[in-house]
Amino acid sequence: MRSRTIALLTDFSLKDPFVSMMKAVIRSINPNVEIIDISHDVSKFDIYEAAFILYGSHKYFPQNTIFLVVVDPGVGTGRSVLTVKTERHIFIAPDNGVLYPIVKEYGDSATIYVIDEDKIAYTPKSFTFHGRDVFAPLAAYISLGYPLTYLGKVTTSNSIVKLKWVKPTIKNNVVLGQIVYIDSFGNIVTNIPVNIIPWIKTCKLLRIKVEGKVGEVTARYVRTFANGKPGELIALEDSFGLLEIAIYEDSAAKKLKVDRGLKVEIRKGE
Amino acid sequence: MRSRTIALLTDFSLKDPFVSMMKAVIRSINPNVEIIDISHDVSKFDIYEAAFILYGSHKYFPQNTIFLVVVDPGVGTGRSVLTVKTERHIFIAPDNGVLYPIVKEYGDSATIYVIDEDKIAYTPKSFTFHGRDVFAPLAAYISLGYPLTYLGKVTTSNSIVKLKWVKPTIKNNVVLGQIVYIDSFGNIVTNIPVNIIPWIKTCKLLRIKVEGKVGEVTARYVRTFANGKPGELIALEDSFGLLEIAIYEDSAAKKLKVDRGLKVEIRKGE
Amino acid sequence: MRSRTIALLTDFSLKDPFVSMMKAVIRSINPNVEIIDISHDVSKFDIYEAAFILYGSHKYFPQNTIFLVVVDPGVGTGRSVLTVKTERHIFIAPDNGVLYPIVKEYGDSATIYVIDEDKIAYTPKSFTFHGRDVFAPLAAYISLGYPLTYLGKVTTSNSIVKLKWVKPTIKNNVVLGQIVYIDSFGNIVTNIPVNIIPWIKTCKLLRIKVEGKVGEVTARYVRTFANGKPGELIALEDSFGLLEIAIYEDSAAKKLKVDRGLKVEIRKGE
Repeated sequence: MRSRTIALLTDFSLKDPFVSMMKAVIRSINPNVEIIDISHDVSKFDIYEAAFILYGSHKYFPQNTIFLVVVDPGVGTGRSVLTVKTERHIFIAPDNGVLYPIVKEYGDSATIYVIDEDKIAYTPKSFTFHGRDVFAPLAAYISLGYPLTYLGKVTTSNSIVKLKWVKPTIKNNVVLGQIVYIDSFGNIVTNIPVNIIPWIKTCKLLRIKVEGKVGEVTARYVRTFANGKPGELIALEDSFGLLEIAIYEDSAAKKLKVDRGLKVEIRKGE
Repeated sequence: MRSRTIALLTDFSLKDPFVSMMKAVIRSINPNVEIIDISHDVSKFDIYEAAFILYGSHKYFPQNTIFLVVVDPGVGTGRSVLTVKTERHIFIAPDNGVLYPIVKEYGDSATIYVIDEDKIAYTPKSFTFHGRDVFAPLAAYISLGYPLTYLGKVTTSNSIVKLKWVKPTIKNNVVLGQIVYIDSFGNIVTNIPVNIIPWIKTCKLLRIKVEGKVGEVTARYVRTFANGKPGELIALEDSFGLLEIAIYEDSAAKKLKVDRGLKVEIRKGE
Repeated sequence: MRSRTIALLTDFSLKDPFVSMMKAVIRSINPNVEIIDISHDVSKFDIYEAAFILYGSHKYFPQNTIFLVVVDPGVGTGRSVLTVKTERHIFIAPDNGVLYPIVKEYGDSATIYVIDEDKIAYTPKSFTFHGRDVFAPLAAYISLGYPLTYLGKVTTSNSIVKLKWVKPTIKNNVVLGQIVYIDSFGNIVTNIPVNIIPWIKTCKLLRIKVEGKVGEVTARYVRTFANGKPGELIALEDSFGLLEIAIYEDSAAKKLKVDRGLKVEIRKGE
């Protein structure tokens, strides 16, 4: 099966020429594939952030898109190269946990391969830039239709590196979750799907306790950003379907001085 | 009429995956359209800056390019979605003033449509990301040749949201204008087309008064950046045809400590 | 000969619309060419950095790629426009030294042309943005197969502007080199190809003296980043084949407080 689209996600930045070298290698092998940049500004070495971005965005991509994720602090060590095939998509990444949420999401309908790098690597292969020497050729050959059964061996989801991917819980009407992303607007994204909160539709005000902060803040639960008054903390269902804390035309993350990873407790305020 | 090119202009940044999700939706609907990024680093929520960038750059794009502008602080509220067709191009944006300069420029030769979102929106449509759920599908369907008369209803230029888009004036040989853009080099772009200044060709020195600053500065009027001496303030006709204040290999905006929006008075110095 | 790929390298940033205007002009002339961005965040006016990025990355690009480099502080002055044809690639840039390393590398197998701008320039041509008005059309016409012998005149490598492009030397087992690039990870790239150091394979520790710094630092010579302990200075062969100084998951450039251009002396430590 051929693919028309490769989607790239790295922490290489766009200042350095590294991303362009990956694209150059891909297009040397398959000049007809289109490349979409998801982001190259993942925080350096931040496997968790890359995993969230991939998980949150992949569903919108065309059928047969090949996702190539290179956040790879273990480059040049013994870490494996994985390829995961789901019904709609193919995912390629180092075996460092970044594909774990995808594997969890698709369960038995996903097939996981450990790739035999020797079949596709650029020669001579560097020890420091497998984005160019291993991952780019791999994505390009898969886009040309090279069968995964030729390129690697099937493995089980138990054999791959896991990621601490916390699911939110609800206990006595308190929702326990975590901040999983801060976007460029300063909106605070939690891991809490709004549709798991039973009382959300009758709720006008949320009480929010953030790990390490004294006391609570309250946020009015609204439909969209512009419903907020100037400076007012609001909460809403964001475009990932997740509970998000925001301020209209301002940065909630700066105002609350919070970072990714902190736990949050959400209570019905009113 | 089919379009081969969609040009994107947003304030979404390239760090977040939002732009890629728009591209993913576009290419799911029309895999053959090419996408050119104008910028995704418009200052957040800055409709005026987006309007200037669009106005200043659109003429160079191929015939039939579809411009998709998503600087959309009013997302999820009642604001309309506009599509403007000129002889050469199609422009799509929220009805928030960002297309006003285009509408002014092309006058009666432009046709303005208010789009019926239900005809093209992604289902379920979020309240917070119409770039993905409304604008991307709209641009993609238009690129496939869906007729605007099917997608929306014609409206008049009086019915759309206006932008304070100041025209420069000349009074007693004093040119009154405004700073409309600071580029990444720190060059100060005014809204004054050089060709409206009658004495510019015989002028060697400009006297410049900036709103809120004490006194005047002088700038030598030159042909290009490299005509400036180190640290010397110069003025020139920039690539938009506008009067620009600059310093060779340095930032005039930093030196003069000016920002966009300030008024300027230009006098002939010598 | 037609080209399918144009690779762009500028200091225009992606915030401003300038890069998109170049792409718009290119695609107006040749809608079928693909454009790969090498980088648009070259430090402003930094011909040396652009030259290094081009030199270090070009080999990975497809046959017949046209490289278009616009770091052009001399725009609008008398400086010439060059096109260099090698066996595999074509390079276009202002005659300011940025192509000098390419010309040196390929020697007599490269042909250098001074372009007659009048044959291809956009009319009216600005004095301040030849990226749009001269270089973009030139690249597009070359991609369509316009012969270089029609577009310009052959010149010699002695006639073009040179760049101070220092080669490393070895004297009494001391390697004398220079820092040529700091990447976005903070890795310090030198101009020293690892394979010119005779004792490198038996070397466990390097002693490094940086120009202007008191004393030496030592760095363990390893194969890849993850071989470093937290905070430990390491040295390795990077993906350009050059000696690089790094810290695993940290910025060596920040820790050592060094900048590009500084000279380095490398000694065998152990």
